Amino acid sequence: MELLKVDSLDEAKLKLYNEYIASGKGLEIEEKHVLDALDYILAEKIVSSVAVPEFDRSVVDGYAVIASDTQGANDSIPTFLKVVGESKMGEVCGIELKSGECVYVPTGSMIPKNSNACVMVEHTESITDDKVAIYEAVADGKSVVKKGDDIKEGSEIFTEGRKLSAADVGFLSSIGIYKVKVYKKWSITIISTGDELVDEKSEYKFGKIRDINTNLLSALSIKYGFKIINKYLVKDNADILEKTLQESMSNSDVVVISGGSSKGKKDASSLVIDKVTSSGVLTHGIAVKPGKPTITGYDKNTNTVVVGLPGHPVASAVLFKLIVCGLYDMITNSQNRDLVCEGIMSENMPASPGRMTFQLVKIDKDFNVTPIFGRSGLIRTLSEADGYIILETDQEGIRKGDKIKVYYL
Amino acid sequence: MELLKVDSLDEAKLKLYNEYIASGKGLEIEEKHVLDALDYILAEKIVSSVAVPEFDRSVVDGYAVIASDTQGANDSIPTFLKVVGESKMGEVCGIELKSGECVYVPTGSMIPKNSNACVMVEHTESITDDKVAIYEAVADGKSVVKKGDDIKEGSEIFTEGRKLSAADVGFLSSIGIYKVKVYKKWSITIISTGDELVDEKSEYKFGKIRDINTNLLSALSIKYGFKIINKYLVKDNADILEKTLQESMSNSDVVVISGGSSKGKKDASSLVIDKVTSSGVLTHGIAVKPGKPTITGYDKNTNTVVVGLPGHPVASAVLFKLIVCGLYDMITNSQNRDLVCEGIMSENMPASPGRMTFQLVKIDKDFNVTPIFGRSGLIRTLSEADGYIILETDQEGIRKGDKIKVYYL
Repeated sequence: MELLKVDSLDEAKLKLYNEYIASGKGLEIEEKHVLDALDYILAEKIVSSVAVPEFDRSVVDGYAVIASDTQGANDSIPTFLKVVGESKMGEVCGIELKSGECVYVPTGSMIPKNSNACVMVEHTESITDDKVAIYEAVADGKSVVKKGDDIKEGSEIFTEGRKLSAADVGFLSSIGIYKVKVYKKWSITIISTGDELVDEKSEYKFGKIRDINTNLLSALSIKYGFKIINKYLVKDNADILEKTLQESMSNSDVVVISGGSSKGKKDASSLVIDKVTSSGVLTHGIAVKPGKPTITGYDKNTNTVVVGLPGHPVASAVLFKLIVCGLYDMITNSQNRDLVCEGIMSENMPASPGRMTFQLVKIDKDFNVTPIFGRSGLIRTLSEADGYIILETDQEGIRKGDKIKVYYL
Repeated sequence: MELLKVDSLDEAKLKLYNEYIASGKGLEIEEKHVLDALDYILAEKIVSSVAVPEFDRSVVDGYAVIASDTQGANDSIPTFLKVVGESKMGEVCGIELKSGECVYVPTGSMIPKNSNACVMVEHTESITDDKVAIYEAVADGKSVVKKGDDIKEGSEIFTEGRKLSAADVGFLSSIGIYKVKVYKKWSITIISTGDELVDEKSEYKFGKIRDINTNLLSALSIKYGFKIINKYLVKDNADILEKTLQESMSNSDVVVISGGSSKGKKDASSLVIDKVTSSGVLTHGIAVKPGKPTITGYDKNTNTVVVGLPGHPVASAVLFKLIVCGLYDMITNSQNRDLVCEGIMSENMPASPGRMTFQLVKIDKDFNVTPIFGRSGLIRTLSEADGYIILETDQEGIRKGDKIKVYYL
């Protein structure tokens, strides 16, 4: 059995990235409505052409005043001001305030010229139609939001690579931006290989194994916004695999082959990827655990990323995230926020020398972190896990009681 | 100005929940393919009708043996065994092993009867076609996964209320379950009110304010899987609001009215909700900050949940999550895992007496937690925040250096 000459995770990603960049094709950019762009990566920086707010406005229901007019007013000795009008929501307030005057302002309305503070209606009393008692002394700027307080005109709101959240969609709407340029999400085909596999379309016979990876990788693709073009379940047969891969490369940005990624006699993935892609196999073997037998390739003719993943479900899920999603993030310069927490290891755990270890864990409410070991890395462990920890290549292990960062799944 | 008689968050949710339950309608349940059920809430418990694995299988490429036959074997002194056949992937292995015999087994294949351990091919040497040297002594069970090791036949996999993750979809596939019963996601209509508001369809004029909440609440709805039926921007006019609400109740499970939820003279929401829903206003005012002026109602005739949210974008987003998403979780008995981390407060922060405070925060890589204050709770703060902290009703505040739980947005 030939041993794999492994790359580090970063080396493997960089080789694939460099081929992608060298092809000169780049990721397609599309313009989308902000609501349709939710969870997409911005392909442009966003600059606000407007100030927010666009005018000085009241943050209370009450009276816009000249602050100095209220000096000395208190609960027992009010100041009396003349009401010279009302500012209307959504309308320009044309009034120019003089000393001794005030204007009724609902929350959010424009304050009149010369006014610099507002008094809440709770601290006032209407005496006559045009006279109000003010029971509070307010300072300059009180209960007023100034023009541009939130966003200055011409200021940068988001950089390229921002992944748009629901709040971002609201933020963009507040400055009148309803369409944005985003990177197109990849289209993907998933090929699962194995004579022993059956899926929902085939009849189960004793001795067979139900295919997990097609649905698992499809679900991960959907979560990442990728569009699934096709799903295939094929036998361990190099000719069929080659034909399926060829066809898939013509209509997908990414083709993932699950299973057959080692160097055993029935493992056809690396031979087929080497034969079919213009660059040949770039990496066969990545220094990670689980997931060492992983293959990458790139085809310049069809501009397709090809990844051979281990059949082991946990390894295939981890490597899909690291290589496929990781490459997409690299290309889009995506600034995804990792959802992480810090916990305390509840037991010792050795690392794998020379390999980056991704260990599934559970986290309890007190942030105690417990590794979940499955005898053969069965899918159940992935389903039960809250997240994973990373032990670096040069790390010997981690001790009970040590602090450790947990990445949510 | 009439003051609001507030409910606690739990009281408000419970009142609404009780009306919902009393209506007897319940949430619709639908059967979906597991891939389409991603992020849905299970409406049934899942029991496995099969064991996983369904037979004892090898976890290595190598030879299935009777463990005791290998006793004493080591690197320098091998044991020789007779190769009596090969187990094929996906096929029943019909061989019954006798002492002194072994069978070639690829990873995942069925081991022969009477064998109880496997030796990795790396620790063997093929001597002739039917003779192999074994260089390792293995114990009973070595490199074998026993039938049912992962899942016992008849065991419960998921309880009702489980939110299906990508890993769960893989897990279900492993036991041959491709369709599941899930709770239907709500359909929702969003009505934003305010004379001052303009949206992308209307022309912006100086003095107007660009509507944020329709898109913000739409984006939050999409993230939660709700289906948006309609979006309206209406003037501060009780008649128009009433007509729009009536119409929306006929085709949506939830109607959200943003803005006009206080008790000011132009605040029509509570009057209209009281008039139009069968139960009248259930709650007007919730003891939370931000978001106090929130209204709930339920209409038994159309089975519609009606919620009046504050116009303030941050408050409207927070209350949407707490009330609308919170009620859905309550009805579906959803066991969502909160994505949380524990951090250290970087400054003192007072609570609001008698109100549950939801404070937006940033978290740095060392888990220092800093509150983000916006002068009027502007949308920018929500977009910049990593998460929020909760200060309970009876809590006086939190001190710099205290540990605090942060909920990711």
